[in-house]
Amino acid sequence: MAETLRVALAGLGTVGGGVVRLLDANRDLITRRAGRPIEIVAISARDRAKDRGVDLSRFAWVDDTSTLATRDDADVVVELIGGSDGPALTLARNTLAAGKGFVTANKAMLAHHGLELAQAAEAARVPLKFEAAVAGGIPVIKGLREGAAANEIARVYGILNGTCNFILSKMEAEGRDFAEVLAEAQALGYAEADPSFDIDGVDAAHKLSILASIAFGTQPAFEAVAADGIRRVIAADIAEAAALGYRVRLVGVAEAGANGLFQRVHPHLVPLDHPLASVTGSLNAVVAEGNFVGRLLFQGRGAGDGPTASAVVADLIDIARGEYGPPYAMPAASLVAMAAADPGERRGRAYLRFTVEDRVGVLAEIAAAMRDAGVSIESLIQRGTHGDGSVIVAIVTHEGPERSVAQALEKLRGSQSLAGAPLWMHILE
Amino acid sequence: MAETLRVALAGLGTVGGGVVRLLDANRDLITRRAGRPIEIVAISARDRAKDRGVDLSRFAWVDDTSTLATRDDADVVVELIGGSDGPALTLARNTLAAGKGFVTANKAMLAHHGLELAQAAEAARVPLKFEAAVAGGIPVIKGLREGAAANEIARVYGILNGTCNFILSKMEAEGRDFAEVLAEAQALGYAEADPSFDIDGVDAAHKLSILASIAFGTQPAFEAVAADGIRRVIAADIAEAAALGYRVRLVGVAEAGANGLFQRVHPHLVPLDHPLASVTGSLNAVVAEGNFVGRLLFQGRGAGDGPTASAVVADLIDIARGEYGPPYAMPAASLVAMAAADPGERRGRAYLRFTVEDRVGVLAEIAAAMRDAGVSIESLIQRGTHGDGSVIVAIVTHEGPERSVAQALEKLRGSQSLAGAPLWMHILE
Repeated sequence: MAETLRVALAGLGTVGGGVVRLLDANRDLITRRAGRPIEIVAISARDRAKDRGVDLSRFAWVDDTSTLATRDDADVVVELIGGSDGPALTLARNTLAAGKGFVTANKAMLAHHGLELAQAAEAARVPLKFEAAVAGGIPVIKGLREGAAANEIARVYGILNGTCNFILSKMEAEGRDFAEVLAEAQALGYAEADPSFDIDGVDAAHKLSILASIAFGTQPAFEAVAADGIRRVIAADIAEAAALGYRVRLVGVAEAGANGLFQRVHPHLVPLDHPLASVTGSLNAVVAEGNFVGRLLFQGRGAGDGPTASAVVADLIDIARGEYGPPYAMPAASLVAMAAADPGERRGRAYLRFTVEDRVGVLAEIAAAMRDAGVSIESLIQRGTHGDGSVIVAIVTHEGPERSVAQALEKLRGSQSLAGAPLWMHILE
Repeated sequence: MAETLRVALAGLGTVGGGVVRLLDANRDLITRRAGRPIEIVAISARDRAKDRGVDLSRFAWVDDTSTLATRDDADVVVELIGGSDGPALTLARNTLAAGKGFVTANKAMLAHHGLELAQAAEAARVPLKFEAAVAGGIPVIKGLREGAAANEIARVYGILNGTCNFILSKMEAEGRDFAEVLAEAQALGYAEADPSFDIDGVDAAHKLSILASIAFGTQPAFEAVAADGIRRVIAADIAEAAALGYRVRLVGVAEAGANGLFQRVHPHLVPLDHPLASVTGSLNAVVAEGNFVGRLLFQGRGAGDGPTASAVVADLIDIARGEYGPPYAMPAASLVAMAAADPGERRGRAYLRFTVEDRVGVLAEIAAAMRDAGVSIESLIQRGTHGDGSVIVAIVTHEGPERSVAQALEKLRGSQSLAGAPLWMHILE
């Protein structure tokens, strides 16, 4: 039996506890598959006293997490602390500098510092792996980095945030509004007390920037992701979408082309016969379109202790097997800095929903703004929806440049006829 | 730049041509991702004169395919000849014996000789890779071998034959019978002139045995796969299934448990809300259920030159990167020889369809056979369907042991009331 891969584990929250349990439960199997045992030797977390339902007394406890980086008895550090900077980043830098491998589920840190960390890992010739950072247990980093490696990828997109998908699915199934369903999801522990990273699309944007870098060979560019979330989606939007043959999903889309790198997280109308339409509840799914393989779909559980631990330990098994290379599928030095694409030049169909005052002339004002901007309307529905007397106007446009839609909305901005800003959702083709 | 990975290519059919085209089209990208160039140096096929729409004059042409194994100018042999034995097997053995890597799309050869070849590859410490052998372009071998490696897999199942799925989808969409749709698929080139490997489930059984071995750590056991195909599915079965909320799919299912290794390819009724129900046309999809990751789904194009070439070249990139290990996820010597499970002990729900004579007492005879065997009936529909006066009786059973259903059918065997053997489809839960 080859020698043990020795792991220092930082962070013992849900996922950290899951990693400990997984390594216990599947110990023999993992040893057979990895070719050698994988053992935790040291652990560190904020609160030593907390009961995590698993025996931690057999591991060395470390109060100062940062010292894990330089322990002689560890080959790899697993970071499950979270946060883009602070202790997680310090630990990552120190671990790689000390010539140890580093495994993390920290999408925020990778979105902000992934390039620097990949350079450090490559310089030290040690693994940096982060399958758990995107789509939980789904091996989509591996799918892009290796499985689809022979392909030029034109587009990668998917449902990257389980909390949002859970909320949208529940809104659809029960015809309820966002705020109500969010409150229930929080009570059930499916959404954080501060849910803004999830529901404003920031978490999905972190993940999208990682996928885009691997898919396109571009430098990670999180700042260039246009992110919007699901706060402003109302029950009526979901109902109108359904009537038109669509489901509402928060989709992250990345494309690379002659116009540059396009990255956006936004609520979309997804046609019912598209695989993403059947992704319900807290599931995640990612689609990659390659020039030879065509459309690949990866689907599974995108969060939770079990799935995320599965991805963390898969990375450890790769390391134990010696099967790893450049984290972003090619040397960090050869990743291209691609300029952000101008979304105005994109062509597509749009769903626009206005909440309006119920009075004469409102429809004419909206229609005129569309006409003046050259936006061609495919369908328009006006419907009184709420007990409060407000009315919605939902429009689906013909295909056209997004710039025109933006112009029309700009023209209507501040109009006395509108109660609040319109909602613009893109239609996934 | 590190040195070139030099490839000898055996077989220049659809897939072989695709590999040549892919390596041309994505040359620079592949070099960046693989860390070094991947170049074909020599090729061999049956017919040198045939126009394959791609310039082959730059490669050394070899008439005797077997000599590829020992060429000094090649590091890896790619085998795309096909056939479980014969030249493909000779080439595989000789290549591995000569200490070169071997990449193949040949599921039949792996189903019959995979264990021997894995042992040879491990003894020679060279790669043996076969992503293209299962589900075409979908990286499902990698998904199981690496992505889900931390999990005990209880069950792996999927739609593994695009020809059958194409035919079933078309039968469903157009309400037509099998023979008619098959003839059309053959005319269009979607089905072989001799379609028996596809439509009798043999091809799917080859693939299932490979998946099962990797998922469960068991020795490949193709002979133990119970394979049945779709020849006997009629339009009325698909219509009755639809009325009950199911679609008919040819599903390969493998399970490992206390009762042994269960492997079966069989037409199934798949509930409409199951991901496999939305797999239409020639797509493939594989589901793996892990004890930590939960249900993973991989979906994409399971055949064709582009997707299959994508998988072959992904294997070459892994090899160029040095990221490979035991072909079956663990050393061949540690794969367990697991006894075949007794299907009679399985519990499940069954769809049974009888084509019967339209006369008094037929229904009583069927119902009595069910009662005597202890099969509990959930629903029964009798319907006259054909112009020829024949009548079908379609039964869905409550959950129970398959042994009882088999006993009931045995009892009815040879009955004068039945026109032909009944069709038994399992219901995927």
